[in-house]
Amino acid sequence: MNAAPIWINGRLASTAELVITAFDRGFTLGDGVFETIRAHGIRCLWLEDHLARLRKAASVLAIPIALSDTIIADGIADLLGAAAYEESAVRLTLSRGPSERRGLWPPSLPSTPTLLATVAKLATASTPLRMLISRQTIRNERSPLCRIKSLNYGDNLLARREAIEGHMDDALMLNSAGRLACATVANVFLKIDGRWRTPTTSEGALPGLARHRLLRILDVDETTITPFNIAQVSVGFLSNSLSISPIHDIDGRSLDGADGLPASTDLFRSQ
Amino acid sequence: MNAAPIWINGRLASTAELVITAFDRGFTLGDGVFETIRAHGIRCLWLEDHLARLRKAASVLAIPIALSDTIIADGIADLLGAAAYEESAVRLTLSRGPSERRGLWPPSLPSTPTLLATVAKLATASTPLRMLISRQTIRNERSPLCRIKSLNYGDNLLARREAIEGHMDDALMLNSAGRLACATVANVFLKIDGRWRTPTTSEGALPGLARHRLLRILDVDETTITPFNIAQVSVGFLSNSLSISPIHDIDGRSLDGADGLPASTDLFRSQ
Repeated sequence: MNAAPIWINGRLASTAELVITAFDRGFTLGDGVFETIRAHGIRCLWLEDHLARLRKAASVLAIPIALSDTIIADGIADLLGAAAYEESAVRLTLSRGPSERRGLWPPSLPSTPTLLATVAKLATASTPLRMLISRQTIRNERSPLCRIKSLNYGDNLLARREAIEGHMDDALMLNSAGRLACATVANVFLKIDGRWRTPTTSEGALPGLARHRLLRILDVDETTITPFNIAQVSVGFLSNSLSISPIHDIDGRSLDGADGLPASTDLFRSQ
Repeated sequence: MNAAPIWINGRLASTAELVITAFDRGFTLGDGVFETIRAHGIRCLWLEDHLARLRKAASVLAIPIALSDTIIADGIADLLGAAAYEESAVRLTLSRGPSERRGLWPPSLPSTPTLLATVAKLATASTPLRMLISRQTIRNERSPLCRIKSLNYGDNLLARREAIEGHMDDALMLNSAGRLACATVANVFLKIDGRWRTPTTSEGALPGLARHRLLRILDVDETTITPFNIAQVSVGFLSNSLSISPIHDIDGRSLDGADGLPASTDLFRSQ
């Protein structure tokens, strides 16, 4: 188990401590959201944007956040200070909290959400990824959950497992129209006919914070990408708030390499 | 909070006790499954089928269950004995357990799943339900998660919330083809042109245990149901392992009443 403590509802606790009841709706129903934040020492990257996105996601599920951004930021800084990692990933998780009543939407919803932060050491070197296109499951691009980081990662888990069992690193997920949406924990950028392309959010892509910055750094078309297009990719990479990872191959077809990829250092230094 | 204790990994604990770490993958990723079981006193209805379905669902996510059916059944009986409710709903939840590593599918997955049971008093009288057809989200019928009761209930939550905000009781969920899949926590049976119909599981309907029995009791077509068909419904009801609930109206159009509905007593007395 991780040696760093956790921060929960305003206090630090030990990692091994049990902190959640059996009735927490994050656990029972996936009724919550989260953010994954890159940190150098005690400094979080893009923290303001992460907290704004957390609040927006919470509003989609109508989960109140009682604590101010300052209190949350201070808590994360305390956590990072205790961990003392050089590079780390902070996970900030918000659930609706323990419910006194069973059912999806009982008359009295819990008023004490669970807000917690954990931290893990981050290995920033990324090796090129072997990708497959998931055939077992698809991204539900018609769900509002596609546009937020909710706790409902079951489909992503299934797609990742499919990749691992196929001796690959990760999976590309198609949407209900059979077009590319994303990878299991990242947005996807592909160079096709000399142009960078990435799926629009309406295709099921999460509006990632790294993606948002890459749209400004690179000359990218937000567009639809079909499996036929994927067969024509020359270079590609995945992006999320932690890293940029080049794609080595897709369904066994090798790409040309890392030529023309944006530098990770450029992205993660930028505000 | 519920006065009855909870049963977790082989022991009884108090309801208010914190039992889950911040790293439990059921909480962080929806990496788990559950069953909802009707009980009279300490006797569970259809327990063997519920445990078989739990094991099947666990295998879809590759979560091991170390405890035998007998030990789980004994634990639930202890729980029900402590609760001493006349009619109750037992919820049996299995998650992959706390993970020492971050990421969707780390090299070393946790080997100690969380298996817990909670119990809530059940009100068995059901009033006819006012239904709307959800327009905010859809059922992902192309996901294997549709065929199991996973912890990923986010879309069902959104659909239910849409119903409550529209001053209705519950929502019917369409699939990506725009056809009926299910309600938010139940299968749907509708009488159209004098014939009972219910969506096939390939449309996104969960293979419910009550549904399975109703297919034998009633003369039902497993079929596709379009919104056009829904506009022609004369009678309808929802079913799950806890209850049969007649439908009062759909999107404001009143149905004919409870005429020809199967008796709840027939279903829930049957093995």
